[in-house]
Amino acid sequence: MRAYFPVLSVLGLMLVLFGLLMGFPLAVSYFLDDGATQAYDIAMLASVGAGLSLWSLTRRARRDLHVSDGFLLVAATWMVMPVFGALPLMLYLPQLSFTDAYFEAASGLTTTGATVLTGLDALPVSINLWRSFMHWVGGMGVIVLMVAILPLLGIGGRQIFKAETPGPFKESGLTPRIAETAKGLWSVYVLLTIACGFALWFAGMAPWEAVIHAFSIMGLGGFSTKDASLGGFDSLPIEIVTIVFALLAGVNYATHYLALVRRKPSAYLLDPELRWFYGVLAVSIAFLTLYLIEGHTYDDGALALRHVAFHAVSLATSLGLATYDYTAWPMFAQVWILFLGSFAACSGSTGGGIKMMRAILLYKQVYREILRALHPSAVVPLRLGGQSVSNDVLHAVLSFGFMYMVSIVSLTLVLVASGLELVTAFSGVVACINNTGPGLAAVGPAGNFQGLNDFETWVLSFAMILGRLEIFTLLVVLTPTFWRR
Amino acid sequence: MRAYFPVLSVLGLMLVLFGLLMGFPLAVSYFLDDGATQAYDIAMLASVGAGLSLWSLTRRARRDLHVSDGFLLVAATWMVMPVFGALPLMLYLPQLSFTDAYFEAASGLTTTGATVLTGLDALPVSINLWRSFMHWVGGMGVIVLMVAILPLLGIGGRQIFKAETPGPFKESGLTPRIAETAKGLWSVYVLLTIACGFALWFAGMAPWEAVIHAFSIMGLGGFSTKDASLGGFDSLPIEIVTIVFALLAGVNYATHYLALVRRKPSAYLLDPELRWFYGVLAVSIAFLTLYLIEGHTYDDGALALRHVAFHAVSLATSLGLATYDYTAWPMFAQVWILFLGSFAACSGSTGGGIKMMRAILLYKQVYREILRALHPSAVVPLRLGGQSVSNDVLHAVLSFGFMYMVSIVSLTLVLVASGLELVTAFSGVVACINNTGPGLAAVGPAGNFQGLNDFETWVLSFAMILGRLEIFTLLVVLTPTFWRR
Ligand SMILES: [K+]
Ligand SMILES: [K+]
Repeated sequence: MRAYFPVLSVLGLMLVLFGLLMGFPLAVSYFLDDGATQAYDIAMLASVGAGLSLWSLTRRARRDLHVSDGFLLVAATWMVMPVFGALPLMLYLPQLSFTDAYFEAASGLTTTGATVLTGLDALPVSINLWRSFMHWVGGMGVIVLMVAILPLLGIGGRQIFKAETPGPFKESGLTPRIAETAKGLWSVYVLLTIACGFALWFAGMAPWEAVIHAFSIMGLGGFSTKDASLGGFDSLPIEIVTIVFALLAGVNYATHYLALVRRKPSAYLLDPELRWFYGVLAVSIAFLTLYLIEGHTYDDGALALRHVAFHAVSLATSLGLATYDYTAWPMFAQVWILFLGSFAACSGSTGGGIKMMRAILLYKQVYREILRALHPSAVVPLRLGGQSVSNDVLHAVLSFGFMYMVSIVSLTLVLVASGLELVTAFSGVVACINNTGPGLAAVGPAGNFQGLNDFETWVLSFAMILGRLEIFTLLVVLTPTFWRR
Repeated sequence: MRAYFPVLSVLGLMLVLFGLLMGFPLAVSYFLDDGATQAYDIAMLASVGAGLSLWSLTRRARRDLHVSDGFLLVAATWMVMPVFGALPLMLYLPQLSFTDAYFEAASGLTTTGATVLTGLDALPVSINLWRSFMHWVGGMGVIVLMVAILPLLGIGGRQIFKAETPGPFKESGLTPRIAETAKGLWSVYVLLTIACGFALWFAGMAPWEAVIHAFSIMGLGGFSTKDASLGGFDSLPIEIVTIVFALLAGVNYATHYLALVRRKPSAYLLDPELRWFYGVLAVSIAFLTLYLIEGHTYDDGALALRHVAFHAVSLATSLGLATYDYTAWPMFAQVWILFLGSFAACSGSTGGGIKMMRAILLYKQVYREILRALHPSAVVPLRLGGQSVSNDVLHAVLSFGFMYMVSIVSLTLVLVASGLELVTAFSGVVACINNTGPGLAAVGPAGNFQGLNDFETWVLSFAMILGRLEIFTLLVVLTPTFWRR
């Protein structure tokens, strides 16, 4: 047990910090007098208190963290945080079960945006703010996780981009450099969020709604203040602002950092992931618009383009806001936009799925296998963005691609075994593991995850965290080998 | 064009041989006077005639075949053969479209067993014989393909078993050794088929039914003489014989060869794939039986075991015969047996899917990634059956696993785009690419593939051939690079 004290002490500090963050909705609630202040008082005390206790019990064992500590810290943080994030929701909505509240908070912190709540329109501003603030905080966490921590842990194959990312990374131990890197990335994240908030305000949202949706959009989360999601605003300017900022949020923050902070705008042009991300989206939007006009789902071309562009961007980036119930589309169009969410967003963004970089590498590897089959003696190097890709990185990416699909198949089987209908089960798992939010059928944009039983809700909470932590981070901690050291 | 003459001349000879094989149902038809003789006369003439013309036009260009010729020959053979295999069906059933007849013949030769025909019980013996004889011939082809030809072409990762397979393989050119290897493997195949035929006869089948079903079972094909499939016999002894021979047919024929011809029965014990194949099946049968009793799908334990054991073995080995409409089971049990068919059978057998060997390697690689994440500096070798696995083989297996899933997803999308319901589309693609036969929903054991439109039928014919040729063999031939030499 003592071997885990260093990790627990850091976890304790993170809980204190998380508790302090509740000061934000508390202040808003107090200021607006929306009747929810007590929810945050108690939750804040519980979070800070639990964090302080954990820290004081374990702080004497503090030492530098090793790689294996890193896995445990990341997994524990993402699993424990929702427990405390759920408290304000349970305190304000006493009829909400712990299972549902945990799901909602995990959905917030993993930036999934799947909800078990209805009657959002009638909730106090501060409660909706807390939900989407969790998106924003979770997005901050994930940027650092993906750009700084996972490559350090050897996960995710982002090692090949080391040269591009700001600040050097050491292979051994978690160095203070992370804090430095984090600050640089976060400055961009904060800047873009402020810009997004103002843009939404100018586009017609009320100030608090603009803040809440800016958090939701930049975290690519998807919680809204309305049961009808963004459809409740029925505003083209708001949809355009959402599209623009979702497209920015789906880009690698290391690229944003280089372009905006280090003032090298060419970074955008040199990022191969970004080109593919926008390219795949543009082609999909054009194709689906024609497909839906051709099939007479829409007779108005402009309306078709508006609906397709919004949902393709929203689901491909894994934002998950909706303006319209796309389950009225032919199944192919629905499945296609769900499918985009599994790979379109760039690595190092707040988006979910396997990320465009891995999709490109998988594609290149398949092509290499074909060449190798035709010319058995030829040596075909695998290159990306001008750098050659090592076997270790390739193994990591291929294994990730495989485990990603195995996870979807197994979790779908588990849900089907619990009695869920196949399309709901499959699309629910895909929507959660990709951190997209809405799925198809019963968990489509017009339905929500309220109808699931407790077991199914926990499985999907697990799926969201599994996807957010790029599968292996969580898998490593779940092996007996990890605990047998 | 002349560059392809050597391949075309071999293809011509194979068509002649294939035409001569029609002599078997022709003789049976004549002997039984079942009124179908004319179907074979003309089909035989067409096949032999086309083959001879092709051969005589191209034979002057004959030379030793290269690796790239091998790909073309294999792909062309499996795509052209069904055209001629379809002729007897079209000649006897004039209302049958070419699309459907091609599907039926491709389903025969790829040992898939998905059918577009109804009224099987009323068909002449020789027509049903021809259908399942195509299974048997296709099974012969696939054993040689998987044990001798594909490793030579660098596909399939079976290179690591080279030491075990009878006869040495040279890396360059298709050597006459293939013929030698083939004879050894086929002698086992013929022996087992004779044993299976007699066993079915003793178990109560009429002689011709026993022959037809022996072809179907040993090829792991799944065509039957009844619309109700094996359920039409309602006989426990027949079901037991079927289970036993399906379990034998799912084993690597190189292992059979070593054990039965070279008289080293220990080969069965030393084959790691075989252990996993039987182990996974045993656990699945025990678990599903309990699951279906627990959920009151069955109140009779013995009946539950009988139905579960039969369908688990039939679908996992990719045989695809049915005795009962398992779509009455809870969805989980249905999906589970369909899922088994995607990996349970051994490489070098007549079974479909990614094969147990690849599944084991994928599992080991994932475990290795976890160990590597925990101990970044450790070197973790990947071993199977006492031999270490090279990076090239690992890349081939990982890329195969990935492309297999990509193929399922893309073909499902294509079918959904054509208007097919999602569960039917997905399970139809899985059942065809795994060469299993029956799927779920509209293409379950009680339905069949007759209800699909022409486009969907062609897509599934393609899926069967794609799966049978282990994806890359066909993919290589479909790239522009292949034709640009
Ligand atoms: K989301
Ligand atoms: K079959």
